[in-house]
Formats: sequence, C-alpha cells, structure tokens
Amino acid sequence: MRQVAVIGVGQTEIGELWDRSLRSLAGDALQNAMQDAGLENAPDALFVSNMMASMLSNQTHLATVITDYVGWRGIEATTVEAACASGGMAFQAAVRAIASGAIDVAAVCGVEKMTDSLPNLTFKALATAADADYESVHGVTFVGLNAMIMRRYMHEYGVTREAFAPFAVNSHGNAMNNPNAMFKMKVSEQSYAHAPMIADPINRLDSAPICDGAAAIILCPLEMAADLSANAPIQVLASAAATDTIAIGDRRDLLSLDAAKASTQRAYAQAKLSPSDIDVFELHDAFSIIAALSLEAAGFAADGHGCDLALNGDITLGGRIPVSTMGGLKGRGHPIGATGIYELGDVVMQLRGAAGKNQVSGATIGMAQNIGGAGSTVVTHILGNR
Amino acid sequence: MRQVAVIGVGQTEIGELWDRSLRSLAGDALQNAMQDAGLENAPDALFVSNMMASMLSNQTHLATVITDYVGWRGIEATTVEAACASGGMAFQAAVRAIASGAIDVAAVCGVEKMTDSLPNLTFKALATAADADYESVHGVTFVGLNAMIMRRYMHEYGVTREAFAPFAVNSHGNAMNNPNAMFKMKVSEQSYAHAPMIADPINRLDSAPICDGAAAIILCPLEMAADLSANAPIQVLASAAATDTIAIGDRRDLLSLDAAKASTQRAYAQAKLSPSDIDVFELHDAFSIIAALSLEAAGFAADGHGCDLALNGDITLGGRIPVSTMGGLKGRGHPIGATGIYELGDVVMQLRGAAGKNQVSGATIGMAQNIGGAGSTVVTHILGNR
Repeated sequence: MRQVAVIGVGQTEIGELWDRSLRSLAGDALQNAMQDAGLENAPDALFVSNMMASMLSNQTHLATVITDYVGWRGIEATTVEAACASGGMAFQAAVRAIASGAIDVAAVCGVEKMTDSLPNLTFKALATAADADYESVHGVTFVGLNAMIMRRYMHEYGVTREAFAPFAVNSHGNAMNNPNAMFKMKVSEQSYAHAPMIADPINRLDSAPICDGAAAIILCPLEMAADLSANAPIQVLASAAATDTIAIGDRRDLLSLDAAKASTQRAYAQAKLSPSDIDVFELHDAFSIIAALSLEAAGFAADGHGCDLALNGDITLGGRIPVSTMGGLKGRGHPIGATGIYELGDVVMQLRGAAGKNQVSGATIGMAQNIGGAGSTVVTHILGNR
Repeated sequence: MRQVAVIGVGQTEIGELWDRSLRSLAGDALQNAMQDAGLENAPDALFVSNMMASMLSNQTHLATVITDYVGWRGIEATTVEAACASGGMAFQAAVRAIASGAIDVAAVCGVEKMTDSLPNLTFKALATAADADYESVHGVTFVGLNAMIMRRYMHEYGVTREAFAPFAVNSHGNAMNNPNAMFKMKVSEQSYAHAPMIADPINRLDSAPICDGAAAIILCPLEMAADLSANAPIQVLASAAATDTIAIGDRRDLLSLDAAKASTQRAYAQAKLSPSDIDVFELHDAFSIIAALSLEAAGFAADGHGCDLALNGDITLGGRIPVSTMGGLKGRGHPIGATGIYELGDVVMQLRGAAGKNQVSGATIGMAQNIGGAGSTVVTHILGNR
C-alpha cells in the first residue's frame, strides 16, 4: 500500500450564501486547494462529498457537474455519500484510490447548500439521514433524535444542561479567529443558559447551524509530494470507518457511540498510536451531546465523563485535548456534506503550524472524526508526520 | 496493487416491485451473492450504489441502512453516486479498497426503487442526472435529451429509425431466457415500427423502463479467492472511468461519447487488450442511440456505423460482439443505481459459462460499461481470466 499525503487544502467561508451555487462554491474551494498545493494540472480524479443536492438543488451527478465546471473535463469523478459523514468517506475513497496505485493525484471536495430552500424542505432533507421507514416516518426531526440521546445521558449520569455550556463557549471562542467561520461571536455560560430551546434539552447553542459552504483537499502519494508541491506533506496515518444501527432505538446502548469506538480503535491500531498521542481532535460537534460522547468513544474520557473535559478546560487550545480548534461544527458551521473536509482541512492547518491565533502549540498528530446520522456511520482519520 | 476477483454474484428480479422496500431488495441481492460465493461471515465493507433513494424514498445514508438490515452491523459502509453510472463507480471503489490492502472482502450492492412514486416525481428525479441549472431547468426530460442526440445522429449519418430496431429485438430476445428480466417478451421489427413514440424519434422500445431491482457482487483479493470460495474467481482486469461535459450543449461533438472513448481506451490499456479480445460486451443501452454510440466509442464500429453491427447480427449471442446478453437495460430492466451491478453480474455469469440458453460460446473476456447522464460519466470494467 502506498503512503498518502495531503499537499493542499482550501475552504470557502460558511454562511447563508444565497448568491452562490453548488458548483461555484465547490469551484472556489478547489481553486483554493490547488493554489495552496501549487498545482496547475488537473488531478487524476475528483471525489465529491454531498448529501442534499438531489433534494434541495435538483442535482445528482454532482461530481461530474463540478469536474466540468472547474475545467477538468475528462478526469474520473464520483460522489460519495454517508449522510453527515460524507466528507470523511470521500476522503477515504481518495486515499485508497491513491494507495492502490490506480491514480496519483486526487482532489476531494465537500460541498453543501442548505439555505436556499424552505426550512421544511431542509429539515425533511436532514431527516433522510435517519431511518426513513422506522424513525423519520413518525415525524421526529434530526434534532429530536439527538435530544432524546442528550436527555437520556443527563438522566443516566446525573449531568446537568449547564455542563454542556463549555462546548459552545469553546467552539464559538475559536470561531472568532477563523475568517471562514459562520459565527464569529463570543458565547458565555450565561448566553448558553438563556439560549432558546430547540428540542429540549438541546438549545440553539447546542446545535450546529443550517448553512452553505465548500472545502477541498488535494492528495498524492507521499513519495511524490516533494516533487508536486512546496508544501510540507501531511501524511495520512490512519483511515478507518465503522457503522452502527441506523435507528437509535435499535442500539445496544443509546449512550455508547459504538461505531465511533470501533472507528477510533481501528484508526489507533493502523497508526500505532493511542489517545495520548493526539494533539488536536476535530470532532463532530453537530450537537453538544455528540461532542461529549465522541470524547468518551475516542478514549479521552470514561463513559459519562465527556463533559468533565469541557468543564476542566481540557478541550481548549491550551488544554489536554483541544477540540473544534477553528470553531467546529457549531462555531465554524456544518454544511453537511462538506463538514468532514473542513474538519480534515483544519487538522492540516494545525499540523502545518498555520492555524494563526488558534494554533495548538507543537501539534504534530491530529485526528478528525466525521459522524453520519446519530452515530450510525463514523469515519476517523489520523494525520501527522512521524 | 493487489489483483482483485469476483467470487459471488446475486440479483433480484426486476419489475414494479411495490411490495418490496429498498432494504429488502438489497438484502435479497446480497444474500444471493453471499450464498453464491459460499461466504458466511460479513465482508469488511459494503459499497452501495443508488441514485434516487433520497428523492423517492426519503432515505440518504442508505449503505448503513442496508448494513444494519442484513446483520453486518459495524462494518464499513458507504454509498457511491454518479447518476446511472453509480453501479460501476461503486464497484470501482470496492476494487480499489481491496487493491490498496485496506480491506479484503467487499460487498457491492446496487439498488433502486422507482415505481412507488408518482411518475412526475420519478421523471424529476431522473432529470437530476442532467445539468440542473442549465438543462433540466428548461423542462427537458432525460428522454428528451437523448432524443435530441438520436435525431442529430439520424440527420448527420443518414440513418433511419428502422436501423435501431435490431437493438430492441436483440435485447428482448435475450431477456426471454433471463428469469430476472422485466420484459420476457419477443419483440419484432414490426412491433418496433409500431411502438408508441415517447420523445420523437425515441419510441417505447428504444428506451429502458422505470423499474425496481437490486444486484450484488462479492469481491476479494485474487490470492484469497480459492480459500474463500468454491467458485472459480473472475479477475478484474481493468477498471477505468472518465467524464465529459454534464450538459450536452457543451459537447465537443454531440455524436461522440468522448467519456466512453477515454474510459474504454484506459481500460484496454490497463488490461493490455483490444476490442477484438472482448467476447461479451454488456453496454449501457438505456436508449438504442446510446447502444449505437457505445459500440462506436468502444472501437467496435466506426463513427456513424454502430447500427450496422445490429443490422448485421454482430450483436447477437452468436455474433462478433454479443451485447445485452441477458436482456440489457431495455429487456432486463434499468433500475438506475443497480444497473451497473446487473451488467457486471451478467458478465460474470457469461465468463463462468453459466448463462444458460444465452451462453456466449467460449466467452473468456467480458466488458461492462456503465454510463451516467447522457454520456457525462462512463466507467468501464474488463473481467476475465488469462
């Protein structure tokens, strides 16, 4: 298996970008990533991650739309979808295509447009990530599913709502220094306490926003990186996915993200690393409860103690395991199909030492974890240079 | 790169399967393929190809739905989409995952349900394969786009509608011996001449049906095939994709499937083979005109002469280059996201010598070509043992 490395990253700002189309957002992200890598020639293949274009923009076949738009006519192109984990799975597909020797240079682009539609349509589209036949059909929204998990967590472990506040404070604080972030605003424990309730106990500051955005990454064989780009290559040390039940009612244990556990364990084994080696963790904080459960599943806290890391300041930039260093899904934004690529791009910037005011000092190993549905698909990547 | 082989294939019947859900169809196809391979343990990963579940069944995240349903909880799962070429691209993703060494055993499952929805919804979903912003928005249907290509072809090369009849006669004739085919009925030149017009010059016998179905394939490293399965492995000799413009109005030449040309040339180069080596060609006859253009693009006929092969009987089971040997998209059926897997499965059955009454005598090398949109994404696989 050939070793694979990242040589370019690019992002657009995240927001309600009503004057931008799917292809123009994707084009900007890809152009940024190509410029960052210093590449002029088209890659061999484009992998696009997206979840909602068919439902909200009447467009399937999106990878070829984008390939055509950016002037790479002729190259391979395919779209990868695993709900909110689409980005991580597309990245994995690119890594394996290069590792196999079938292609050399791959571009991965995550893109999503969610804000042009009536809210009802967007919520319906989001709900397709759950079990259509056994969950969504009853009318439960995606926030509702996560609210049930959070309620059970609070009940089971005796954790209060207030214990989740530091996740919002951390994400929004970090977002303030990210020019691409949607919410560059300070959030305090007090504003968290007074945030309007969306699906009790999940309030507005517990949940990631509906938004638009695109992010891209350029990958190549590690052995070719020096010839292709002036950037120091960031190696892909592990790429591992796992699944759980699609419906949360079928779970072995509602409060255990088994797929996240399996995915991170496989990733640690591939990279021959353990939680203590991880300097930065871009986790999937679509909801505060998921941030807590992810920290537990990845081995940073015991079950029921994810919030302790937040309360202790361990998740801050100077803490033991910094998370959401550029704002995460809550502060930076969560354009569904693009999120996994934003996470990976943020890890790359940290490992390059190029995260500006949000730089985690001495970061050499970073982990990005992308979660689809309510923990149903989880894909974990470990990047770094050793 | 590890060599990859097919050790199991499975299909459901194709039809208007109103009493079956996406997951139950996929489950049947996967069970058939696993039984065919003789495998009991779950594979390492499931790759699902589908285009319309989000729009017609309110379900994204389909690969995890299916993984959960068939009892493979925990394994990797992802959905691959490239409109009608989804099947071929999912197969390619599986081949590369195995070739890279990341996984050993992969299941690929194509599934589509198109007949439960109001026709307007299904046509709208089909149109998402074209350019939403510059083609579909004007109201042109997918059949309409292909009708424009066929009209231009007839005009440019002086070919009559009647010259396309043998494609329908061949496909339906072959479908009669395929228990899974939707249309097991004889079609004559006369019935073709009197078939109702859908989008002039495309008539009902020129176009593949709206239908439901699922097909599956089990893959593993060639070196492990003998240990895993009693079936003689069928090797993947080439896997190559290419793209063209998404909108047909942007084409270099409306009558040249450039992506099909590039894809087949890359495939021939990978396999070190030429058109004369191909014993069976499962082409993408969603419309008769596409069958003609594919034969030209793949090097079996000069431009403008694709219909000659049909008129001469060269495409029949005993001819020079048998196509649609189990009925093709027109006779067997075209459940969009599943079609590429049906094509590959039919090639495998031919190469095993297990195609029954439709066996192509002495077939050792087979090619399957899966086309997305009006020639916008093309993926070609060559299978066989040498």
